[in-house]
Amino acid sequence: MPYITVKMLEGRTDEQKKALVEKVTDAVVETTGASQDKVVVFIEEMNKSHYGVAGKRLSDEG
Amino acid sequence: MPYITVKMLEGRTDEQKKALVEKVTDAVVETTGASQDKVVVFIEEMNKSHYGVAGKRLSDEG
Amino acid sequence: MPYITVKMLEGRTDEQKKALVEKVTDAVVETTGASQDKVVVFIEEMNKSHYGVAGKRLSDEG
Amino acid sequence: MPYITVKMLEGRTDEQKKALVEKVTDAVVETTGASQDKVVVFIEEMNKSHYGVAGKRLSDEG
Amino acid sequence: MPYITVKMLEGRTDEQKKALVEKVTDAVVETTGASQDKVVVFIEEMNKSHYGVAGKRLSDEG
Amino acid sequence: MPYITVKMLEGRTDEQKKALVEKVTDAVVETTGASQDKVVVFIEEMNKSHYGVAGKRLSDEG
Repeated sequence: MPYITVKMLEGRTDEQKKALVEKVTDAVVETTGASQDKVVVFIEEMNKSHYGVAGKRLSDEG
Repeated sequence: MPYITVKMLEGRTDEQKKALVEKVTDAVVETTGASQDKVVVFIEEMNKSHYGVAGKRLSDEG
Repeated sequence: MPYITVKMLEGRTDEQKKALVEKVTDAVVETTGASQDKVVVFIEEMNKSHYGVAGKRLSDEG
Repeated sequence: MPYITVKMLEGRTDEQKKALVEKVTDAVVETTGASQDKVVVFIEEMNKSHYGVAGKRLSDEG
Repeated sequence: MPYITVKMLEGRTDEQKKALVEKVTDAVVETTGASQDKVVVFIEEMNKSHYGVAGKRLSDEG
Repeated sequence: MPYITVKMLEGRTDEQKKALVEKVTDAVVETTGASQDKVVVFIEEMNKSHYGVAGKRLSDEG
């Protein structure tokens, strides 16, 4: 604890995800005082056809 | 905001998902007064082997 | 199934929430072909101090 | 209701998932008094490259 | 890991929640082979006015 | 997008939450290349009686 879930579109590289987990963990430790080894990060990827804003999916944009 | 997540079994067509995002957004705008461009919809699909009711998965039903 | 979660700021009236559940359910039934009695809606409310966009919480906006 | 989500790493067998849904449902019925046919279980699987503890992903461990 | 979230209506006693965490953990350990000290359980409670089935909230039922 | 949810125990101050949203947003922008104004952060707080590790809730620890 804390548990952090990052939901984002598919397409980031493995290096980006590695850095994401590292830097988000640092940010949480620095601001909440949590012990680093208690911080858990989950990444959830979305497909453009499963994500819509204002009633329109990203996959339907021209 | 609002953020709407629709969790359902795999198998709907792309047209159904497109309509789902559109109509759910309309319903949320109409009833909450949210601005349409602030409404976000996520679709999450489940597999029958990852979903159980009353202790039995859908994939195990005869 | 489907299971719909609507996450939004606190402050809607009870009547608005009642209508939200009703209309969102209709939209899901109409577009996915799900049976109405299988559609489940959860409402989750957020506080302005627990929600941030672009690094700034709503509660911190002047 | 209740609705139970089990988030775990990929790799369990189908038999393990079947038993998981069954036994978790039993545990919830026994302790909450919920009716068995109202208990819903979702399984969500994670990839090692999408899960990090202490700033390090499982997929990056030597 | 695994991480288990149990979403249910408000109203269970503290003893029931204590037993719930204990028994669900046992069920997960037994069926997945996870180490007991890695199993995490979250309880999320819902209000009847924030939960609807078939378009109708529990709080609106006569 | 991305959407980040931080789940943690109650008890952080308002200043800590403000800094958390700010720093986590920075970390996500830096590592994913997302535009800052698209990054959304949600904070979810838990009570010690709703969180258990290894079958035991935090509120039951001596």
